[in-house]
Amino acid sequence: MSKSPEEEHPQKALGWAARDTSGLLSPFNFSRRATGEEDVRFKVLYCGICHSDLHMVKNDWGMSLYPLVPGHELVGVVTEVGRNVAKFKVGDKVGVGCMVGACHSCDSCSNNLENYCPKMILTYGAPYHDGTITYGGYSDVMVANERYVVRFPENLPLDAGAPLLCAGITVYSPMKYFGLSEPGTHLGVVGLGGLGHVAVKFAKAFGVKVTVISTSASKKKEAIEHLGADSFLVSRDPEQMQAAMGTLDGIIDTVSAVHPLLPLIGLLKSHGKLVLVGAPDRPLELPIFPLLMGRKIVAGSCIGGMKETQEMIDFAGKHNITADIEVISMDYVNTAMDRLAKADVKYRFVIDIGNTLTTA
Amino acid sequence: MSKSPEEEHPQKALGWAARDTSGLLSPFNFSRRATGEEDVRFKVLYCGICHSDLHMVKNDWGMSLYPLVPGHELVGVVTEVGRNVAKFKVGDKVGVGCMVGACHSCDSCSNNLENYCPKMILTYGAPYHDGTITYGGYSDVMVANERYVVRFPENLPLDAGAPLLCAGITVYSPMKYFGLSEPGTHLGVVGLGGLGHVAVKFAKAFGVKVTVISTSASKKKEAIEHLGADSFLVSRDPEQMQAAMGTLDGIIDTVSAVHPLLPLIGLLKSHGKLVLVGAPDRPLELPIFPLLMGRKIVAGSCIGGMKETQEMIDFAGKHNITADIEVISMDYVNTAMDRLAKADVKYRFVIDIGNTLTTA
Repeated sequence: MSKSPEEEHPQKALGWAARDTSGLLSPFNFSRRATGEEDVRFKVLYCGICHSDLHMVKNDWGMSLYPLVPGHELVGVVTEVGRNVAKFKVGDKVGVGCMVGACHSCDSCSNNLENYCPKMILTYGAPYHDGTITYGGYSDVMVANERYVVRFPENLPLDAGAPLLCAGITVYSPMKYFGLSEPGTHLGVVGLGGLGHVAVKFAKAFGVKVTVISTSASKKKEAIEHLGADSFLVSRDPEQMQAAMGTLDGIIDTVSAVHPLLPLIGLLKSHGKLVLVGAPDRPLELPIFPLLMGRKIVAGSCIGGMKETQEMIDFAGKHNITADIEVISMDYVNTAMDRLAKADVKYRFVIDIGNTLTTA
Repeated sequence: MSKSPEEEHPQKALGWAARDTSGLLSPFNFSRRATGEEDVRFKVLYCGICHSDLHMVKNDWGMSLYPLVPGHELVGVVTEVGRNVAKFKVGDKVGVGCMVGACHSCDSCSNNLENYCPKMILTYGAPYHDGTITYGGYSDVMVANERYVVRFPENLPLDAGAPLLCAGITVYSPMKYFGLSEPGTHLGVVGLGGLGHVAVKFAKAFGVKVTVISTSASKKKEAIEHLGADSFLVSRDPEQMQAAMGTLDGIIDTVSAVHPLLPLIGLLKSHGKLVLVGAPDRPLELPIFPLLMGRKIVAGSCIGGMKETQEMIDFAGKHNITADIEVISMDYVNTAMDRLAKADVKYRFVIDIGNTLTTA
């Protein structure tokens, strides 16, 4: 007989969980496993709120297991390490992103692409190797296999750095893989939200030219003056879009709502690459002629492997890249979720777990 | 005032043309330009019937100019060369494919990718540099700039080799560009028609493993025993398709009808590439989640540049690759078009222009 979440492991833990498709979060007592030989235990200090948390608490993707403790952008300070862990020690600043396990024997795992392992285990809401369900970063303590723990650069603030563990790697990885990080590249970034604003920052640090494409003209000033984008296109303005046809080497499309691809494909030069990192819940219309006529590519990309995640966060440290955040207390989370649903945040909520997660 | 097709150039020519959207072809007197300094003139001996000829004679793509002389898989023997032409001489066996001009100054042209030049000039039905309309290979004589003329390998039969100038390069180019021609690759070929059967032959010559995917189980024996495919999947059989999930490095999809992409994306391994070379006239449904989860690519590819077309035909000569054809007389062309519309041909019609195109 399986034990309750509070009793299945020896270490008490406190989190906030959604209990049903209302998505409402409330305090939840559960437990974490003892620190295994290859495990790192850490006190969670901050956790970002990713848009996918919003989908998951409401079971929008039909895969949620309740009670569900979200959070896959969590950072904190190491409190214990297993005896085989050489890479981390007590007191280290660390983080965990979207995953906590994989098979470690398939082609993807062998190539440091655990994120594409068919047996990849998500940080929350997924069955772990031991059969228990994983719980995420909206909680006071975390235990993870050291392979899934990244070292945080000393100079990077924990709160504003936390979102990079998902939002950062999600845009960094495809820029590298699809050859869009080379100087001389002209990159489009579609959507200026949690992913998009970080994409602009990484792209500028790579030294590429960036055009932000957004439905909202109101974001132009922010995109150019604050984030450093080189130009801005209002996607609903046919004249602007027409004038920019064939100018981009690649596009990172962060929009997760259903939206037309044809205008974006049109913005690409021949041999250009449109990379989707948002996941609309319905198929998009793909016009084939424009793809053929320019040997263009539409691709998807999903976070990144652990080796590359460490590389990304080190790069962020070197170039002082952080997310623009609004720090909130744990008990504000439901309000934050409502605001996130309305895109009312610049650009990422981060929960101050260390100071505000209490049993009260 | 512009002159009639028969009078606009000094050299008389005879072809078969469609006059309206009925697509019916009939004899047509027109003219060809005098052999310019960089031009090659040749007597047309054979011309393949491409599926796009069928679309063009009926104006399915809304871009046809009548009278329209189709044909972009034409081969013959050189009868005259311009004074600056060093590469060809009278008596050479040559061919012309899908295009006869481009700007020669853009990035694509500079990289021997005239096929992606925005000013690329199609072999028929397009305005040429001099303002006259191009006429294709269903005609007795051709004149083309030497850049658009390929040398035919001595050992390759002109009739069965002709279709390679479109069908061959259309599948050869993406296999090379997308890295699907390396030994060890497992390639899927969707659709076993004019393009598909040639794709299988090239792929086997590259030394890759080939799985043919077709709606029609009746093609299995042919695909494996005659064309040398390693395996065969009936795309309408969910069990077969399910069993083959995640097994292919890439797919060349030759189907130009509207068809579902989801099962094909499912056949790909992570990081796999689905390359469309057929052009459905409506957008296809693109499911995004499966793309993201495996960093998969959906791409288009359109014929190939002239340098690569020569490389392709030389490779075909070396490996004795030809199309499987049914040779027809010129006056059978309308019947052949009807049969092509019903996919009733194995696998390409080739018109015996040299022996059967007469004014009678």
